Amino acid sequence: MSTDYKTRAGQEFDRAAFESLMKRKNFYWQSFEPHGPVKGLFDYGHPLATLEAQFLTLWRDHFVRKERMQELKCAMITPYNVFKTSGHVDKFADYMCKDPKTGEILRADHLIKDVLEARLKSDKEARGEKVEEAVEDPKKKKKASKAAKTAVKLDDQVRKDYEFLLATLDDYTGEDMGTLIKKHDIRSPITGNEVEPPVSVNLMFQTQIGATGKEPAFLRPETAQGQFLSFQHLLEYNDSKMPFASASIGYSFRNELSPRSGLLRVREFLMAEIEHYVDPESGKKHPNFSRVRDVKLPLLSRQTQSEGGSTPTVASIGEAVKTRLVDNETLGYFLVRIKLFMDRIGVDPAKLRFRQHMANEMAHYATDCWDCELLTSYGWIECVGCADRSAYDLSVHMQATGQPLNVRETLKEPVRVEEFQAQLNKKKAGPKFKQDAGKVQSALDALTQDIREKLSLELEKEGKVEIDVPAMEKVTLDKDIVDISKQTRTVTTREYIPNVIEPSFGIGRILYSLMEHAYWTRENDVARSVMSFKPTVAPIKVLVVPLQKDARFNPLIQELEDALDDRSLSFDTDTSGVSIGKRYSRNDELGIPCGITIDYQSLEDGTYTLRDRDSTKQVRAKLEDVLDAIERMVRGRETWEDVQKRLPAFESQDKEEKE
Amino acid sequence: MSTDYKTRAGQEFDRAAFESLMKRKNFYWQSFEPHGPVKGLFDYGHPLATLEAQFLTLWRDHFVRKERMQELKCAMITPYNVFKTSGHVDKFADYMCKDPKTGEILRADHLIKDVLEARLKSDKEARGEKVEEAVEDPKKKKKASKAAKTAVKLDDQVRKDYEFLLATLDDYTGEDMGTLIKKHDIRSPITGNEVEPPVSVNLMFQTQIGATGKEPAFLRPETAQGQFLSFQHLLEYNDSKMPFASASIGYSFRNELSPRSGLLRVREFLMAEIEHYVDPESGKKHPNFSRVRDVKLPLLSRQTQSEGGSTPTVASIGEAVKTRLVDNETLGYFLVRIKLFMDRIGVDPAKLRFRQHMANEMAHYATDCWDCELLTSYGWIECVGCADRSAYDLSVHMQATGQPLNVRETLKEPVRVEEFQAQLNKKKAGPKFKQDAGKVQSALDALTQDIREKLSLELEKEGKVEIDVPAMEKVTLDKDIVDISKQTRTVTTREYIPNVIEPSFGIGRILYSLMEHAYWTRENDVARSVMSFKPTVAPIKVLVVPLQKDARFNPLIQELEDALDDRSLSFDTDTSGVSIGKRYSRNDELGIPCGITIDYQSLEDGTYTLRDRDSTKQVRAKLEDVLDAIERMVRGRETWEDVQKRLPAFESQDKEEKE
Repeated sequence: MSTDYKTRAGQEFDRAAFESLMKRKNFYWQSFEPHGPVKGLFDYGHPLATLEAQFLTLWRDHFVRKERMQELKCAMITPYNVFKTSGHVDKFADYMCKDPKTGEILRADHLIKDVLEARLKSDKEARGEKVEEAVEDPKKKKKASKAAKTAVKLDDQVRKDYEFLLATLDDYTGEDMGTLIKKHDIRSPITGNEVEPPVSVNLMFQTQIGATGKEPAFLRPETAQGQFLSFQHLLEYNDSKMPFASASIGYSFRNELSPRSGLLRVREFLMAEIEHYVDPESGKKHPNFSRVRDVKLPLLSRQTQSEGGSTPTVASIGEAVKTRLVDNETLGYFLVRIKLFMDRIGVDPAKLRFRQHMANEMAHYATDCWDCELLTSYGWIECVGCADRSAYDLSVHMQATGQPLNVRETLKEPVRVEEFQAQLNKKKAGPKFKQDAGKVQSALDALTQDIREKLSLELEKEGKVEIDVPAMEKVTLDKDIVDISKQTRTVTTREYIPNVIEPSFGIGRILYSLMEHAYWTRENDVARSVMSFKPTVAPIKVLVVPLQKDARFNPLIQELEDALDDRSLSFDTDTSGVSIGKRYSRNDELGIPCGITIDYQSLEDGTYTLRDRDSTKQVRAKLEDVLDAIERMVRGRETWEDVQKRLPAFESQDKEEKE
Repeated sequence: MSTDYKTRAGQEFDRAAFESLMKRKNFYWQSFEPHGPVKGLFDYGHPLATLEAQFLTLWRDHFVRKERMQELKCAMITPYNVFKTSGHVDKFADYMCKDPKTGEILRADHLIKDVLEARLKSDKEARGEKVEEAVEDPKKKKKASKAAKTAVKLDDQVRKDYEFLLATLDDYTGEDMGTLIKKHDIRSPITGNEVEPPVSVNLMFQTQIGATGKEPAFLRPETAQGQFLSFQHLLEYNDSKMPFASASIGYSFRNELSPRSGLLRVREFLMAEIEHYVDPESGKKHPNFSRVRDVKLPLLSRQTQSEGGSTPTVASIGEAVKTRLVDNETLGYFLVRIKLFMDRIGVDPAKLRFRQHMANEMAHYATDCWDCELLTSYGWIECVGCADRSAYDLSVHMQATGQPLNVRETLKEPVRVEEFQAQLNKKKAGPKFKQDAGKVQSALDALTQDIREKLSLELEKEGKVEIDVPAMEKVTLDKDIVDISKQTRTVTTREYIPNVIEPSFGIGRILYSLMEHAYWTRENDVARSVMSFKPTVAPIKVLVVPLQKDARFNPLIQELEDALDDRSLSFDTDTSGVSIGKRYSRNDELGIPCGITIDYQSLEDGTYTLRDRDSTKQVRAKLEDVLDAIERMVRGRETWEDVQKRLPAFESQDKEEKE
């Protein structure tokens, strides 16, 4: 694979070597291997499971505690109605084409993209143009290239058509794609067979609650809906004050049809989602924005992308919000907090960018969206999405259930307003609609003034009107059961449905990227790999190594282990017979940041050497000083450079480079 | 409800008041409420979600880090074959009876128990005997009592039959229960209808992987199987050294048919499971047992229970293992570690006991099992199960897959042994059985010497033998494909399948019990409830309260908040207009352990008062001293009593009791 992707030390990134380390050191593996591994499901071994636990501790500290969010945990198994209402039952789907001869399932958009790109590439070759090697997905490229083994030149018009198609593919419906596949004779790149027309396949895992089969349910594909449905609890807990945020760390599920790219596209995954609720009329200001105004971010704007560029502009968030490149303060504030978090866990700043969504990537109601993307050997990967979900979700659930999911605010001064009211006669509506009366009233409440005016006239003329009530049939309302008329009233409260700004973290993707960013090999020895995790996130903090096998070291080992336990510092002790250099080297692959050597001088004067994993430099000091230094590095209060300034350097008696 | 269950302050426990606090302070609620709540699914609000996060941090510290276990995380969605092999597909089920008229589903054993207990109670009343009020489940009692409104005396023999039935009910099959229901005319206690015969209903949630429907799967009902199937990875990571333990914190699922008892019986739940792997020939010794030998535990033995007793004996674990009350050191070591953990998180020691399983509660292969039970208003609740799973799970997966899940140990001295070998002829078996050849060989390997001897004779006589191969049909092996004969060989390695000792924590149950244990009300004022969480687990650590609304306090509030942030201490600031006593009081319901008051003296000399939630006592000191004290209490290094000794007491200017 030819790629520009480099390790932190500037070396060619060798994915095979990296994956071999991941396997050798038990970072992760495919689940249920003895029974035949299952695609898209992975187990984390000790190093990665522990890295994730440390990640979560820092995430809670950085977001939940520091921003005083309300953490909550919602159920994963979710009844049908919730996702019917949110739109996921109808829209959370991919279009699939079946190869009728092999039974293989192909994602329709991937199929079209792969085939057309292959034809364009072949055309370029035939025209003798330079062919760019995309790094995005080497597997895909390989497949697609099978379909175009000899260079074939296309008509100029066909070439233009293809380019236009590829640029606009995201807007195509399933039917559109079916037509397109026929028209351009798009076939399976693997078998060359014609494929069946695209069918929509929902990506949620289905199950059912209870034994009766009457309660269909899904495993949630996002944690957001549970948060929205808890809005009244959250608002109450916040003493009805706005704005505020809820946050949830939890699992979501996607029944991917052909998972690929290792940990980057999996079937069950841990997310952390923040839902920040704001008054839509507040201008989406953020109270702490002034504290971050000068932080600079690499921003790849929609405009730059549409002009074919891919180089981000570095700008302060203050400037970006002022020029409306970033839509509002709250969105900008979160972009900065995300960047600071990524720095804190040790993401390579040169491999991070914020990419603005193109218009066709956003939901129709969204005003602005930015993804935090991290560069990996698979290309730029979306790791945090910052979306503006407007009032969409709260509104649809409120309409479907008739339950309040809004804010009621007392006005400073009462206001007199003249407007069309649409009100059920409760005495008559109650017996008629029973538990649905609330839904009917909610539907009336949702009508605009224009429509109320129209209905008022109709009611007068016809004696009845017909309205749409979500989750019910069309409902006919007689004159005696509904009143729609212009009225003057004094308003003392204002009701509104909050807008939601949602930073959504894909934790598995961030961890995978972080591991690629941490990986490098020692100069002059590619076999000696190092995982340079920051002490704050490193799965194991300390390596204890006696210089050699000698029973006199045993009491010191025990004393040291007890002292580490007292400070809750995790450690491994390597007492195997191999040289000290080799022992350090094989534990560098686990990313253990601090090494303590017990040697003969320790027996005499109670001093120990402390080794830094990245530089392999050492200092020597009394046990308490060594442990203090480690504790400060692990808590993020001090760096190795600080420690080196305080404690005397030590030259190793067993040069590592000789090993 | 009449119950002996008391709060930590010795008051009658009022469950309605407790539940009202849980609701008012957003500890938890039923999921998806606006769409109509779903039974057995709960959301945790900020206080409980945060309590859980702190619990997990301590659990990881106490078990994974301190005991140097390998943490791992396995997939929840699990293919059919895994649970077919483990026995869950066939046996993880409850028997259900349907009320044919209402369609209601009743658990067969619950139904029998409820009805017979009601009849016995009625009999006692008719005989004029004292009727004990069971605290176990007030709802159940209520239901059952409907069926027996007037006291009915039973024949002496019937009474004895019922008592025997109840004592042995756990041993009944579905068919047995069907016969019993007919014989004793057991009907639905709710409707009085006859019920249909019991049918077995599996309790796993079913789903499928991918779109083709060819990959049926389950949501796991325990985390253990994923750990077992990772055994080779774990052993390798541990440099093939035994014994060691893996640990996993993760969600499991049970499709309960009629969930009840709030958070105690739910459909998705977080568990923490430890699998400790030992050599079955090691005597199950534990290397650190001597460190805990003298710790005393309340042990309710099988014998005491069979004699009708329920008072635990308090004994040191050293003594209990020596007398074989507790089977082995490893099991004993874990009981102690569990007890120490429960102390650490603040479980009431008077509401904790270890109960030994009765013979009929254990799996057939288990030697000894103990549950850590916590007393709640629902009775004694199993919160941690300590089971000996023997080599069962690893063996069945190894047999079904033909993959090694065992330990291979080099012997110190080679040994010559004479024994029957059963070996496939690989050249012929390969083409015949293809990928199943390994399974067939595993089945041969599993045969005892006795059976091999028998088969050897049969093979000689008949020219073929028939063997059972798990997950395959019966397999016939001809003479030319298998050799079974006595051979002498030199053995240099020993292979064995480890035994597994499994402490399994139900986290939701522990958290619920902990909340009941933390709850009490102030003397002379039942409306003032307190949640006495230890500072180490309290969801929010500090409450900041300015004495009253005064703009001069604002810079001090800001400074204090920044200082708390610097130390990563979570806090709430209550600047509302109500009296300081009321503000403290309403935050006592959240269990915030430390209160800092900003008053006029703070403006003058930079000192602040620090209030203890439980005693409402205060001390006064400089900001740094106050924060140091809080940090030490939160890290479990110091108690309020220690702080009181160091810092000068302060008499409140606004007596709380007057509020």
